[in-house]
Amino acid sequence: MRLLVINPNTTQAMTDEIGHAARAVAAPTTEIDCTSPTGGPRSIEGFADETIAAYHTLETVARTQGQYDGYVIACFGDPGLYACREVSNVPVVGIAEAAMHTACLVAHRWSIVTVIPRVEPFIAEAVHRAGLWDKCASIRCTPLSVLEIEQDIERTKRLIVDYARMAIDEDGAEAILLGCAGLGPIDKVMQEALGVPVLDGVACAVTMIEGLHAYGLNTSKTKAFLTPEPKELVNCPDALTAAYVRKQESDV
Amino acid sequence: MRLLVINPNTTQAMTDEIGHAARAVAAPTTEIDCTSPTGGPRSIEGFADETIAAYHTLETVARTQGQYDGYVIACFGDPGLYACREVSNVPVVGIAEAAMHTACLVAHRWSIVTVIPRVEPFIAEAVHRAGLWDKCASIRCTPLSVLEIEQDIERTKRLIVDYARMAIDEDGAEAILLGCAGLGPIDKVMQEALGVPVLDGVACAVTMIEGLHAYGLNTSKTKAFLTPEPKELVNCPDALTAAYVRKQESDV
Amino acid sequence: MRLLVINPNTTQAMTDEIGHAARAVAAPTTEIDCTSPTGGPRSIEGFADETIAAYHTLETVARTQGQYDGYVIACFGDPGLYACREVSNVPVVGIAEAAMHTACLVAHRWSIVTVIPRVEPFIAEAVHRAGLWDKCASIRCTPLSVLEIEQDIERTKRLIVDYARMAIDEDGAEAILLGCAGLGPIDKVMQEALGVPVLDGVACAVTMIEGLHAYGLNTSKTKAFLTPEPKELVNCPDALTAAYVRKQESDV
Amino acid sequence: MRLLVINPNTTQAMTDEIGHAARAVAAPTTEIDCTSPTGGPRSIEGFADETIAAYHTLETVARTQGQYDGYVIACFGDPGLYACREVSNVPVVGIAEAAMHTACLVAHRWSIVTVIPRVEPFIAEAVHRAGLWDKCASIRCTPLSVLEIEQDIERTKRLIVDYARMAIDEDGAEAILLGCAGLGPIDKVMQEALGVPVLDGVACAVTMIEGLHAYGLNTSKTKAFLTPEPKELVNCPDALTAAYVRKQESDV
Amino acid sequence: MRLLVINPNTTQAMTDEIGHAARAVAAPTTEIDCTSPTGGPRSIEGFADETIAAYHTLETVARTQGQYDGYVIACFGDPGLYACREVSNVPVVGIAEAAMHTACLVAHRWSIVTVIPRVEPFIAEAVHRAGLWDKCASIRCTPLSVLEIEQDIERTKRLIVDYARMAIDEDGAEAILLGCAGLGPIDKVMQEALGVPVLDGVACAVTMIEGLHAYGLNTSKTKAFLTPEPKELVNCPDALTAAYVRKQESDV
Amino acid sequence: MRLLVINPNTTQAMTDEIGHAARAVAAPTTEIDCTSPTGGPRSIEGFADETIAAYHTLETVARTQGQYDGYVIACFGDPGLYACREVSNVPVVGIAEAAMHTACLVAHRWSIVTVIPRVEPFIAEAVHRAGLWDKCASIRCTPLSVLEIEQDIERTKRLIVDYARMAIDEDGAEAILLGCAGLGPIDKVMQEALGVPVLDGVACAVTMIEGLHAYGLNTSKTKAFLTPEPKELVNCPDALTAAYVRKQESDV
Repeated sequence: MRLLVINPNTTQAMTDEIGHAARAVAAPTTEIDCTSPTGGPRSIEGFADETIAAYHTLETVARTQGQYDGYVIACFGDPGLYACREVSNVPVVGIAEAAMHTACLVAHRWSIVTVIPRVEPFIAEAVHRAGLWDKCASIRCTPLSVLEIEQDIERTKRLIVDYARMAIDEDGAEAILLGCAGLGPIDKVMQEALGVPVLDGVACAVTMIEGLHAYGLNTSKTKAFLTPEPKELVNCPDALTAAYVRKQESDV
Repeated sequence: MRLLVINPNTTQAMTDEIGHAARAVAAPTTEIDCTSPTGGPRSIEGFADETIAAYHTLETVARTQGQYDGYVIACFGDPGLYACREVSNVPVVGIAEAAMHTACLVAHRWSIVTVIPRVEPFIAEAVHRAGLWDKCASIRCTPLSVLEIEQDIERTKRLIVDYARMAIDEDGAEAILLGCAGLGPIDKVMQEALGVPVLDGVACAVTMIEGLHAYGLNTSKTKAFLTPEPKELVNCPDALTAAYVRKQESDV
Repeated sequence: MRLLVINPNTTQAMTDEIGHAARAVAAPTTEIDCTSPTGGPRSIEGFADETIAAYHTLETVARTQGQYDGYVIACFGDPGLYACREVSNVPVVGIAEAAMHTACLVAHRWSIVTVIPRVEPFIAEAVHRAGLWDKCASIRCTPLSVLEIEQDIERTKRLIVDYARMAIDEDGAEAILLGCAGLGPIDKVMQEALGVPVLDGVACAVTMIEGLHAYGLNTSKTKAFLTPEPKELVNCPDALTAAYVRKQESDV
Repeated sequence: MRLLVINPNTTQAMTDEIGHAARAVAAPTTEIDCTSPTGGPRSIEGFADETIAAYHTLETVARTQGQYDGYVIACFGDPGLYACREVSNVPVVGIAEAAMHTACLVAHRWSIVTVIPRVEPFIAEAVHRAGLWDKCASIRCTPLSVLEIEQDIERTKRLIVDYARMAIDEDGAEAILLGCAGLGPIDKVMQEALGVPVLDGVACAVTMIEGLHAYGLNTSKTKAFLTPEPKELVNCPDALTAAYVRKQESDV
Repeated sequence: MRLLVINPNTTQAMTDEIGHAARAVAAPTTEIDCTSPTGGPRSIEGFADETIAAYHTLETVARTQGQYDGYVIACFGDPGLYACREVSNVPVVGIAEAAMHTACLVAHRWSIVTVIPRVEPFIAEAVHRAGLWDKCASIRCTPLSVLEIEQDIERTKRLIVDYARMAIDEDGAEAILLGCAGLGPIDKVMQEALGVPVLDGVACAVTMIEGLHAYGLNTSKTKAFLTPEPKELVNCPDALTAAYVRKQESDV
Repeated sequence: MRLLVINPNTTQAMTDEIGHAARAVAAPTTEIDCTSPTGGPRSIEGFADETIAAYHTLETVARTQGQYDGYVIACFGDPGLYACREVSNVPVVGIAEAAMHTACLVAHRWSIVTVIPRVEPFIAEAVHRAGLWDKCASIRCTPLSVLEIEQDIERTKRLIVDYARMAIDEDGAEAILLGCAGLGPIDKVMQEALGVPVLDGVACAVTMIEGLHAYGLNTSKTKAFLTPEPKELVNCPDALTAAYVRKQESDV
């Protein structure tokens, strides 16, 4: 299958790493492109960041329709996920939801270890959207900002180990979800250090969307994710306008 | 107080009516402007519409900072609500949340009567965001699209009465929330016809934000709604970029 | 509008202060009377206190029907709220529910800081009744009894700051609700000290009931709050007996 | 053990029947008195009725302290339950809670069949208080008022069978709880007719409180049900005043 | 009534103690046998233990049909409870559910103090099955394994007191449930030491099933607990095979 | 990878079909064996069936340790899932959980269409165990028993279409999960007929466990799924006894 992995922020180094993580786990028959939107914030750390990134991610999905068999939204917060499902004729999977659903198969309860505290309500919303709040032992926020993650990777590892250990010892977590796509590269090192499953959502999303493809499943176009009603968009990019004039379909 | 009521869609006739509804209930000392964003869909009936409208609503709030004492987001779904709270130094109230919180004072449980069925998951998300799912007896969707509401107002009234009656008789609703700003003009006619409280969120939002102002309350800037982290935005409107360079404040 | 604010306990000094807080936030066109019932406990700190106070508050509302456009029940626990709605032809608002609904507009999650630990289950019941348990980060109980609050106001301030700070730092609260009407006078001092919104329910209830009045909303008389069935009351005050012979109405 | 069963309403015929039901199931060593409070409504069908009845029930429990080894509150809604636990040195059991807890041992999910629709929110509150909402398949309200139950007992039986059958067939109920103490006398006839367990709360409360007594359990006096704080009560019956001056104890 | 108390593990010393605890609280008219299954683990401390024990407990209930008026499953986790209800013509009560339902009558919220941490998810499942999660303040696990309980009974008492005290002081527990049948013998000593109700599920189950018997209630055979569909069992004990050929009945 | 798919019932025809479904979706590098336990019921339609099947499934997993890289439990109810995770050193996935987690990626809410009504509580338990109750629009039971499914496949298709259609039209389902492994063969025919995604759990479990394998994830052995404590099993198969003497490991 052909897969477009979208890093919703506009930091190219992070896009490169996400592409690397995606390819590492993908089946030989899966071709992966990885890209950022043409606009938006350098990192996503709150609701305003998310709102702007969701808009640009939606434009990316609309603009590339017909070129891919599936999309992965590679920000732990799944910005624009439901909107993208509306405009896409092929499956769209978010890395937060994929990590959470996968974690449920290897752990009774799990925690998310992530960046600065202000992202907590934003990530909590993704957990609720996935319907998995009761499986989430905790969301542990470190003092790291998104862009600091790779500036001092040893400090990053130390902080993730410390906060993950608190999640395991105090909150009852049996697996750790890395709550930022930028943390993906350290997944196996962390798993080694912690002795519990450690999940990067990018890897989970790639394997799950491969599963959808293998089994022939596509987004249901019956209610929540119906193609947008045809209507005029004022001052919007051509790709979005085009997505709104496509005839509504309800194929499986 | 000076209040900006934003109709997140770009249909001027609806913006005019919303402004009328807002002024009808406002205190004599409240000055109200009503506007649409400079871009976005003609109506909001799903997640893609919402994502686009949220982006443009956010730009509007950012662009007008310093001119108002408060903002009302006048779409029943509160697009961009949390993002707008981050970039605003004054309170921001959504009409869905305002209608729901107000309804709780006059009814034990209430229902939302709204437009076409595809908005149901989108409105359900607003109910969950407000934390009031258990108070919501039902979301009843009519066959009306947003822009059909005023095309045949008598048909609109008949449909709203029919579906509201089902909510009251079958779902246990004791009050009816009009689930689209475009339905505001018929609130008192519906209340007369149904014999239960009927709430237009625009009126509720105006009185509640006047209450915040009278009591001297502002958005908490401690966690969920912290001003955005200073960072570069790629290819974004000046107003957004400017909002991101403002120094972070945590005044009450 | 004419408003009766009822302090359900029988301590006149507290009644006076509540009246002061109510008038401080009211619109110029709102006339406020403040009173205590003719019987009941000096303070409300548990379920027996509440049961007795609810009975006397109900009698007060029944006895004064026709003289007011709305009632506020000024005890954080809303004793007798639903019963009063049944016997009243005008809106009745509790200060706990008003504080909680208002807080939801300025904070993602909030905590209640209140008096001695035994009130915790009693206040938790009010939070559940309002349907807002998931928005409540915590209920923090101090060692203060209700009547100690004003005996040493500096100690009171210190304790409230200490426990509110724990709610903010450990529980994730973004706003603080003062969980006793007797704490109202220190709301602005606490807000200044804590740097987050601090809410006294009396102020919130006054502005919210003014909003109901401005918008023409009254209690739904269709199910939960129907006027009591006509029936004999044995050994009950005249005002209650009279409330039970009034013909049942279902006006909005 | 000596047991006082309190019918919180003031209809003597109903008190007699409740006493009969209680004695029918009690162990030979259990002595049962059955009484009504000295004041209050003839029947309990809403929140105002409940508030008045709770006050008088509390007075009854306070006045008879020292004479009994346990109390049963025999109204399906458990008026004043928590308040009575505060003032009592011996266990207090409500018939709604007892019926629900007992039903959980013989049915996966159960329904409550009761009187007129306005009691539904009042009974729902009792289900929530017991923490058993998820076990409750439905609350089915008939057109019967409390005092009509025994006026035409054949009509009563027909209505209960009809509504119970709907609960079983449409809501998934596997047992039926009779949602009014006045329905107790027809429990076995209904069980015969319906082919599922039918529970009268009076019988359940008597056997459960006998169990508490046999095992030596008493109300926990550590937090929710602490003896009231010593304080002045204005214009209250002597028995209540006396209950408030008793020294606080925390015996098991 | 004739009652079979089944200790689902195969440690005879524990079976003896459970029988003792059951008889201590039973009515004079109740005859109690106590037994272990013919196979299974020496103790139950996880999901594999439970799965094996449930199978053997089911065989015991099937094999003894017709000899008893009721069954108690005496492991805090209620292994095989629902399966046993299907094959039994008389009531079956688990000690975990009985302890929880009884605790609700004497405490607003309660905690379970139990053995090694790995049983926590297993006991949590029993709490959820009973529908009482919101009443459960905490599950506190000690370092004790099941079979260590009686090896050093003074150490056991010290540990239970310590962890129960944490549940009371930190989690808000108002009563303590002993989360292992092996802890039953110390119930009254613990109650004395802690000053709150302490419940052994064996005693609670005996009094509750006596109540079912006194009131003439049996398991509902309408849906969840219908007698098994007649079908072939491969390589299963005769008693199970026999249970599957009994004609389906739906008597109350 | 080498995968053992276990059909927990003992009907060979069904085992054959499940093997076929598993191989149809598997990657070329996945080798699949499919088997039934050596004992247990011919079909699984209730709690007694499940208890017996879980025991024999556990034995199968214990007996085959070391021969496979993963296990699939192919009964929609996931019998013995948690117990098998304890004794297995490689991942174990149930088809109910896999179908539910996969469905969440293609539908906002989904329904389960299954066999006779008595399985509803049994399947509901699997939904709760997966933590996905709020995503489940309904469980629709047909009149089909498990073994009737393939006796008249045209009738089966008609019934599934009818009940799935009700789930879509009345309950808001956007995808259909086939709630019995025996229904797997008609998945694509049903998807064609219904126009929404239709999921057989066998296919979902195979692709998800391939994903776990690709990404190097194994069951967390830290709490819920720790290897059983070493202890004596009385009268149990050798494979189980052996599983209990293996040293406890906590490898990822």
